[in-house]
Amino acid sequence: MSAISFELKHICKQTGARHGVLHTPHGDVETPVFMPVGTQATVKGLSPEELQSMQAEIILSNTYHLWMRPGEELIERAGGLHKFMNWNSPILTDSGGFQVFSLSEARKIEEAGVHFRSHIDGSKHFLTPEKAIQIQEALGADIIMQLDECIPYPADREYTKNSLERTTRWLERCLKEQHYPEKQALFGIIQGGMYADLRRQSAKEILAFDTPGIAIGGLSVGEPKEMMVEILDVLRPLLPEHKPHYLMGVGTPDYLFEGVLRGIDMFDCVWPTRLGRNGAAVTSIGQVTVRNAKYAEDFRPLDPNCDCYTCKNYSRAYIRHLIKANEMFGLRLTSYHNLYFLISLMHQMREAIKNDSLADLFHKFKKESNLQVKLKRNSIQC
Amino acid sequence: MSAISFELKHICKQTGARHGVLHTPHGDVETPVFMPVGTQATVKGLSPEELQSMQAEIILSNTYHLWMRPGEELIERAGGLHKFMNWNSPILTDSGGFQVFSLSEARKIEEAGVHFRSHIDGSKHFLTPEKAIQIQEALGADIIMQLDECIPYPADREYTKNSLERTTRWLERCLKEQHYPEKQALFGIIQGGMYADLRRQSAKEILAFDTPGIAIGGLSVGEPKEMMVEILDVLRPLLPEHKPHYLMGVGTPDYLFEGVLRGIDMFDCVWPTRLGRNGAAVTSIGQVTVRNAKYAEDFRPLDPNCDCYTCKNYSRAYIRHLIKANEMFGLRLTSYHNLYFLISLMHQMREAIKNDSLADLFHKFKKESNLQVKLKRNSIQC
Repeated sequence: MSAISFELKHICKQTGARHGVLHTPHGDVETPVFMPVGTQATVKGLSPEELQSMQAEIILSNTYHLWMRPGEELIERAGGLHKFMNWNSPILTDSGGFQVFSLSEARKIEEAGVHFRSHIDGSKHFLTPEKAIQIQEALGADIIMQLDECIPYPADREYTKNSLERTTRWLERCLKEQHYPEKQALFGIIQGGMYADLRRQSAKEILAFDTPGIAIGGLSVGEPKEMMVEILDVLRPLLPEHKPHYLMGVGTPDYLFEGVLRGIDMFDCVWPTRLGRNGAAVTSIGQVTVRNAKYAEDFRPLDPNCDCYTCKNYSRAYIRHLIKANEMFGLRLTSYHNLYFLISLMHQMREAIKNDSLADLFHKFKKESNLQVKLKRNSIQC
Repeated sequence: MSAISFELKHICKQTGARHGVLHTPHGDVETPVFMPVGTQATVKGLSPEELQSMQAEIILSNTYHLWMRPGEELIERAGGLHKFMNWNSPILTDSGGFQVFSLSEARKIEEAGVHFRSHIDGSKHFLTPEKAIQIQEALGADIIMQLDECIPYPADREYTKNSLERTTRWLERCLKEQHYPEKQALFGIIQGGMYADLRRQSAKEILAFDTPGIAIGGLSVGEPKEMMVEILDVLRPLLPEHKPHYLMGVGTPDYLFEGVLRGIDMFDCVWPTRLGRNGAAVTSIGQVTVRNAKYAEDFRPLDPNCDCYTCKNYSRAYIRHLIKANEMFGLRLTSYHNLYFLISLMHQMREAIKNDSLADLFHKFKKESNLQVKLKRNSIQC
């Protein structure tokens, strides 16, 4: 008995996009869904109640960060991650691999695992597939991820092939190490870089393990958008219909649309909160870099078409003042709006899927929002 | 017709402490009251709704800071400070004098006003009694303060006497400059340092202007607590019964008790939020410096006797983790608790006054809380 199940509710007749419900030990999640990232057991600046108020249903937290600080054993003694951070809804933890590859120092990858030094204190560690599972079992998330290698873009064919095959072997070791499949659903991850045939090979290998959910890794890592879309199109017919499809590290509104249009159910990205902390907002009329001088006396809300807490109560001028004055509350307000915006966008997509009109929504959105947000995965280190 | 009125409801038979209601254009405030400080048009880290949830009834904001950034004219165009910061309850603004004396550079005081350079960009400014009123009228708080000089401790007798007499002349100029006494109540400020006779002289001079409220400035500036208490005892019989008495820049729990016991109705201090941002909590069992290593695996709440949002939902271990990981949310949680603690303490004092048992509460509190908090006003630059 798997910890989760995925109920497919409707397929959009206009696009083939999926609406479903993910049943987890900590409640149901409607899909497609955007998962806010709570890197260090907190979504930066926001309370669990604020996340609930914007209808966030599931959040992601980072194994690497929690392992390094405060340590998974401490969190286990606290009663697990849900209790530690006061979030009683579903949680997904990643494997730690992405941060080891992007954040840590002196890393050396071998078949057994990855040697690296902590980015906090330089201490030496060794992350193996087994260790990734042990940590995630101590944390106790509803969905956990296999250790994989998220290779950079570009990467040569031979390296990519060797890497994806190792990722497959690592999945096998993760599954062997897992003790509580009825409490935590372990997802396999399809890699294979930008090579269509290698993606097919990885999909075939990963899907053979019949994990309760399937993730696609190694996209949105700096490649042109068309390339990501092409890979998603390659994978789409291979993905099992009755399992959730998770596109890792995505993203921005246009990438979310591209993913949903290709049968993706789950997404995560630090982009909205990071953008907020940089003093900018994603809005229905394009990006508003509210820290800029031109907003100093602009008494309109961040987004004139938004009904979020920030937009109902505060002006661009006030938020800019807070940011210039280094006041925490400014970053709370922008982060709140940005997450609300993405979560609302996913709600709109769900409704459009139910009404068989997702393509219409996408065209309308593109016309109105002027959103050409470029997202470099390498610059978005979780 | 004054903008405010003070309704004296009960005098504690055990101590003479006062319970009353302050009626203001933005609603009623029960006294004695502690006013959280929103220096730059935000109480650091907290939302207006969070302040309401802890029953904060009135907040203070700083004229100097808002004048320097974003400027009072911008706030006036935004519809005033209440609207700008989304706080629809009463606000008190200070005159800017205290920050000019404590924060700014190259200041030079003369009869006309104070020359100084901004602590932000070094620009030259001149703060006069008239300017202090003009700025506060643009901001639109319910209660505004005269420009005064808050002298350091110790100060010699001659300087103190000259200074308090200038403060009296400045009050006269402030009152002449004020345009909207029916919308904003202007408080005079009694100075006179640590000299009983000079305090009496200042009280006589200031009270002659019959302002709708009376403030006591220049205490809790580094002097021994006994000295502050002595001055409060000197002033107590002189203060008009049917006007609110405001002890500026106080304080910590023991100072709040000492003030309330001597007929003080209003207090403000940055201490609780600053303490919170320094990773420490004021609790019913003494100060808990939660950032310290000894709390790393302490799964109890900050204060075992507190029912605030922070204490109901989070452990010391979690809060310490957030602080060590530089997560904003940790400072929100400690700041929330600290303000809640002081506001709850004022509630308890009110109830004890109504029950004629404030002295009992003070003795009980001293025994249980082990609170010997030393507060140096000079180190608490608002």
